[in-house]
Parts: sequence; C-alpha cells; structure tokens
Amino acid sequence: MSFLKIIEEVDSFKKTDAFYTLLDHKGTAPLGYIDPTIVKLLQSETAFITDHDSKTIAIDSKFDTLEKRNDMLAEVANRWRKIPELDERLNKGWRNELYIVYNPSKTEYARIERAFSVLLGVVTYGVHINGYVPPELSSNGKLKLYIPRRSKTKPTFPGMLDNTVAGGLGYPHGLKATVIKECFEEAGLEEDFVCKNIKSTGVVTYFYLTDDGRAQPEVEYTYDIIIKEDEAHFINPQDGEAEDFKLMTVDEVLERLGNREFKPNCGLVIIDFLIRHGFITAENEPDYLEIVSRSHVKFPFPTR
Amino acid sequence: MSFLKIIEEVDSFKKTDAFYTLLDHKGTAPLGYIDPTIVKLLQSETAFITDHDSKTIAIDSKFDTLEKRNDMLAEVANRWRKIPELDERLNKGWRNELYIVYNPSKTEYARIERAFSVLLGVVTYGVHINGYVPPELSSNGKLKLYIPRRSKTKPTFPGMLDNTVAGGLGYPHGLKATVIKECFEEAGLEEDFVCKNIKSTGVVTYFYLTDDGRAQPEVEYTYDIIIKEDEAHFINPQDGEAEDFKLMTVDEVLERLGNREFKPNCGLVIIDFLIRHGFITAENEPDYLEIVSRSHVKFPFPTR
Repeated sequence: MSFLKIIEEVDSFKKTDAFYTLLDHKGTAPLGYIDPTIVKLLQSETAFITDHDSKTIAIDSKFDTLEKRNDMLAEVANRWRKIPELDERLNKGWRNELYIVYNPSKTEYARIERAFSVLLGVVTYGVHINGYVPPELSSNGKLKLYIPRRSKTKPTFPGMLDNTVAGGLGYPHGLKATVIKECFEEAGLEEDFVCKNIKSTGVVTYFYLTDDGRAQPEVEYTYDIIIKEDEAHFINPQDGEAEDFKLMTVDEVLERLGNREFKPNCGLVIIDFLIRHGFITAENEPDYLEIVSRSHVKFPFPTR
Repeated sequence: MSFLKIIEEVDSFKKTDAFYTLLDHKGTAPLGYIDPTIVKLLQSETAFITDHDSKTIAIDSKFDTLEKRNDMLAEVANRWRKIPELDERLNKGWRNELYIVYNPSKTEYARIERAFSVLLGVVTYGVHINGYVPPELSSNGKLKLYIPRRSKTKPTFPGMLDNTVAGGLGYPHGLKATVIKECFEEAGLEEDFVCKNIKSTGVVTYFYLTDDGRAQPEVEYTYDIIIKEDEAHFINPQDGEAEDFKLMTVDEVLERLGNREFKPNCGLVIIDFLIRHGFITAENEPDYLEIVSRSHVKFPFPTR
C-alpha cells in the first residue's frame, strides 16, 4: 500500500485555462491563480485590470506602495463580505488576521486578510509541529507521536486527526513567535519548554485545490518537539480546537493514515516526519520519490 | 550569507534547444536529455532514430525487450570506448557497473554501463550517508559530523571534503545492500554495526550539468548513522578513496561549506542534514525555501 493517495489529495491543484494569473501592479510578477467565480467578481473592481487574452488580472499601476495596496485590498475584502456566495468562505471565515504576499525580492508586497487570501490564490504560510517521544526515551522503546483530534465543532475537517500543533503565519509574527503562540494556544505548552525542546526540521510545500475550487499554494514549516511521557501532562489545550491528545505508536499512526483519519495536509506532514525518522523508506513505499518531490513543490510565485 | 550558491552549483542544468530528448523504443517515454556532441554520434547509430523537428532520439522499435536493449546498449557503449573524444569520460571512466533506467511503470527498462549513462543523460541513483555524533552523546554537547577528505588521486573533485560514505546504486544491488557495501568499502564499518545504527532520512534530487556539458538528473537517498566518539576507531577505510576522517562540529562544517571545500553534491546533502537537524533554518537562511525545493526537484523522466 502506498501513501501517495494522501499526497495527491493535498497536492491536488492542476493549472487549467479557467484560472487567471494575479499579477502585481507592474504587471510582471505572478502572485497567485484566481478561480473563475473570483475572476468574474474582480472584473467589476476598478482596482484590477483584467486581460482575457493573457488570462491575467493585474493590480492597477496606481497601487505603487505597500500602504496603498493594503488599503485597497482591505476595502475590497470588507465590501465582499456582503456578497452572499462568499458568505461561507469570506464572511464566516473572516479571521481579522493578515497574511503577507511577497515581492520577487522577498520583501512584503501586500498584507491580505487570511480569508481573502484564499480567494486570490496566493501563497500562504504556516507552521506544523510534531510532538513525539523518541525510541530511546520511550517506555516501550518505540517512537510515539502526540496526536490530537480536531473538535467536532471546527468548521473545517471536524473530528479528524491533526498534527500536535499547527497554525498560520500571520502578520506581524515571525516563525518563532508563531511557534510559541500556537504551542500555547493549541497545546498549553509554555514558552520556556518550547524554546528548549523545539527543533526546526524543514518545510513542505504543496499546491492544494480547496473543496470550493480555489488554488491554494501552501508552505508549511515543520518542527519536531520532544515531549517525554512524564511531561505529557504539560499538554493542556487552551483554545478548545482539539478534542483530546493521544500518544500513538508509529504502527497506530500508519494504520490511521491508511484509513484516512488525518486531515489531509496533516497527513502529509506526518508522512514527512515518518520519512525523516526512517519509518517510511524507499524500500517499503513504492511511490517514495514522488511523495518526496510532491511534498516539496516549487511554486511559480515569489515566496518569503 | 546564503547557501543557495552551493545548491545552484549542483542543480545547475537548464534545458535548452541544444539538448535532444532520449525516448524509449515506443517513442513515448522520455528517458533523458542528450547533449549536442552525443546527439551527433547517435545519428550514425542504426539503433537510434533521430527526429530534428521534435528534437528527440528514440531507441529503434525493434528493441522491444529488456534483454535486447541491454545487449544493444552494451555493444554501442563498448564500441564507443575507442572514440578519442570520449576517452576520458567513457573509456577511462569505465566502471563495469550497470545502472538501471526505469519505465513509467517503475519496472526496469534497460541496464546501462555507469560511464555510458551520463552520456545519455538518464536518471542515476546513489546513497549518501552522514555519520554523526548527536549532541546528547557528544563530549562537548555539540553535534559533530564525520567528514572525510577525498583522495588527491581521485579523478573527480580530488582533495575536496565529502560525505562520510557515498556510492552509486548499481545493478543488482538494492538500497540496503548498497549502503552496507559502501559503508564497508569507504569507511570499514561492519554490516552488523551499520544495520543496527543506520536510519533512512529521505532523498534529494537535483539536475546537474557536468563540467563536460552533460545533463545528469541525480537521485541520492540519504541516511544518518550515529557513530559515537568511542566508536570512531570503527572507521577504517578499505578502498583508499578517503584521505582521512575528521570529526567536525557544525560550526566548522558551516565554515567549510561557506569556503566551498565540499564536493558540491555532498555540500547539498550536508545542507539537507543541517536543515533536518535544525541548524539551517528559515530564520538564518534567506533562501531557505528555494534551497529545499531545488534539492527535491521533480524530473520529467520516469524514476524507480
């Protein structure tokens, strides 16, 4: 059995002619792919210039500073909250959290409300953290992972299994601050404990097609954190996003991955963890190379 | 300072019109990119069909079994050893070692002499192994790596720093057998010790342009092996390919990486190691995302 199916569910976007490319105000840098329903809405916005021949929508050249772009995008996003067909995604999904879009030079190009960024198909960023007990510290000598179940009241993927901690990278927080903030909110882990035990381990990138047909190029920085079995009581969720945390052996995790019990992108992160830790190998996974390359996609857009 | 320069030196091939695509005998599966000097030579071979419009060279349709293809490729390769301009690469580089080329179904398509495979621009495979002392077992609490220096008499990259162990994946050996064989030959590590301590950690893929202008899509499976400081005497090279092994702290490795003392693809493997172990992070490496994606390239060819 191959885990490629889980990767295919996450790296699921394929560019078609129906999608238009969002360009910056100079008309040169591609920033995202916009789906047909949003293309239609943007055509009546004066701040955007649509070109059907090249299938591009550029931000008007007058938005030539970060501040002007931020103001314009906030105004459009707020006005669109009243559009009935966007109610679920934009209005109910509104987070009051800004995501950053980057220039090719890696400087900030614009800040966009999180719920609005998905409509524009721009690259979004987050952190995913695997809490685990390494074999040499484990009561039975086997590596174990701390796996929460998402609350049944979450709007997305309710009741599915998740990574120990995960969250979006919102302005103005950097990676470290986001890791500390999310570890506390989602798992109740204290800053000192996190700083002492967290380890940066890489980054996964994949191009997701959302259920409502939107392009979502995602970058998730991955971290491992050792939480010994006698430290498990440190885990004490603050925000009610997780139902419970279960300490699972790798065998159990593999079984639940196979049963598709994980939220798909968390499944991808777990697969990356199991590859790094030597459990999923080129010898037991027939699609090993494809899994690794499709978890590290290069986007046709600038990134941070 | 960014390590992207090292990655750019390894992921250095860019497809141009000068390169022709090698196709299988059905004319459908692309197997490699062939540089102009080899395109010219293949045009006078009856076993290959050149099409200048599509810039392809297909294996003749009569080579419809693995055996027929192996025989034909061996005959051409052997005959070409006498071509003066190929003397260095093919005749002096001859290894009597077969590399496998794969069908889209991941079955064997052909076996090709290692030195000949580079001329055809097909995907090649190898293993790269990082021997290290983890911080918790280190005398000074710092992670250290076992770094050999390549013999000054090696034909390629003499005197440069290398990974602890590395070698090509030649027929009929699998990954595990190759790891065991190379660990013994290059470092004198015994099979029992290797099997007990080795850990598969992933795979890096990059598209290399060789010094002599050839396309070389490379897949290197990566492994970590813990060798404690009091086990360092287990390292006892058998084949004279390494001058010495030095136990280096991460600071020293980073400095030598910066000084470009590593053979470039071994530098890429070390960078991957330092990312997985939390030393190179998105916060201290400005080109982190590009480094990770260009170390995990998806090739336009079938792979194993």
